Amino acid sequence: MSTDPLTTLRDATRAFAAERDWEQYHTPKNLAMALSVEVAELAEHFQWLQTGVASELDDATREGVRQELADVLLYLVQIADKLDVDLYAAAVEKMRLNALKYPASRETEPTPKA
Amino acid sequence: MSTDPLTTLRDATRAFAAERDWEQYHTPKNLAMALSVEVAELAEHFQWLQTGVASELDDATREGVRQELADVLLYLVQIADKLDVDLYAAAVEKMRLNALKYPASRETEPTPKA
Amino acid sequence: MSTDPLTTLRDATRAFAAERDWEQYHTPKNLAMALSVEVAELAEHFQWLQTGVASELDDATREGVRQELADVLLYLVQIADKLDVDLYAAAVEKMRLNALKYPASRETEPTPKA
Amino acid sequence: MSTDPLTTLRDATRAFAAERDWEQYHTPKNLAMALSVEVAELAEHFQWLQTGVASELDDATREGVRQELADVLLYLVQIADKLDVDLYAAAVEKMRLNALKYPASRETEPTPKA
Repeated sequence: MSTDPLTTLRDATRAFAAERDWEQYHTPKNLAMALSVEVAELAEHFQWLQTGVASELDDATREGVRQELADVLLYLVQIADKLDVDLYAAAVEKMRLNALKYPASRETEPTPKA
Repeated sequence: MSTDPLTTLRDATRAFAAERDWEQYHTPKNLAMALSVEVAELAEHFQWLQTGVASELDDATREGVRQELADVLLYLVQIADKLDVDLYAAAVEKMRLNALKYPASRETEPTPKA
Repeated sequence: MSTDPLTTLRDATRAFAAERDWEQYHTPKNLAMALSVEVAELAEHFQWLQTGVASELDDATREGVRQELADVLLYLVQIADKLDVDLYAAAVEKMRLNALKYPASRETEPTPKA
Repeated sequence: MSTDPLTTLRDATRAFAAERDWEQYHTPKNLAMALSVEVAELAEHFQWLQTGVASELDDATREGVRQELADVLLYLVQIADKLDVDLYAAAVEKMRLNALKYPASRETEPTPKA
């Protein structure tokens, strides 16, 4: 009995697609395309903002954004499922690679340009 | 002490950005734009495939896809954090809305086409 | 003998794909996916900018942006070609629709709601 | 008096934005974000298709696609205008670079894998 959110969502999206006979459409490629559409719907909320800080968003926009974030996560979970990717393990590993690629500067001075 | 993957990643990305003084760049708008770039890097692996089923992906592509899925999750977690969105709760709620919008067919027979 | 830029580019991209036997990959769907990848490469140049006004871009970025704009146009021309869409006619028509949807000059007369 | 489609559209979009006092929103960054949203609306028409060849599209979808292609062109023209990019010249130059990067194979035999 799992209480891990990502596993719970994986199982729920599997059942949801199966009940609607949608697996035939859910190739990784099509799901990646659907993911990009959801991300654009998220971006649409921000496109004309001056700077895009959180305080520029009104309540209706925040609720819209929340739903798009949910859609992004749901498609992400489904692509990972189709390709047997453990999302959490992949993310932890990617953060390790990022830490090597972008070492934290120990000094607080601005990076010299020359 | 949390063992929830999404909370763990939220805390890890917070620390990562703080150590590099990157919070100044991380408006929700900029993070949404960065998310859309990562999703495109994911899509790029699929763009010329015939149908895009999982078996069309070779091992190198699968590893590339895995890293892009990780990047997508990491940006998603950061946007949600900036906007105080509980990603798991939002996804569960969205699935309930989706179930109302797309009711599962109650009969198990294939949908007749005519 | 055409001097219309869009027709010239259409003919040039047709020849380019034919010489490389790439037509087999160039379904409208795949080209749309490739277009979205190029647009993301364009967006990448802007993602961490404070406001994104033109003066924030240095010369190297401007040259990169120029090349991505070219890529976007080239894929756009190819999708339109596959679907027999006259891009210019479609754009002129869309501007007419936009003018109805977003009427100009709020001062002359209030927009009638019915 | 220009009959070049891209110049005509540039002038038309300039006037359209000026009449609505929209220039303040039209930073290159915001226009790039809007472009990515339009491209996603284009992609949405293709996302669940089996292979995405032109014959899979019904008439309503074709009309929707035509309008999205127009939107993509209109935003592309506006970004190029803000950054003083000659889209046609940039595309011709990019095709020359692409020809160097991907030389046309003169022989018709399949590329050996090893």
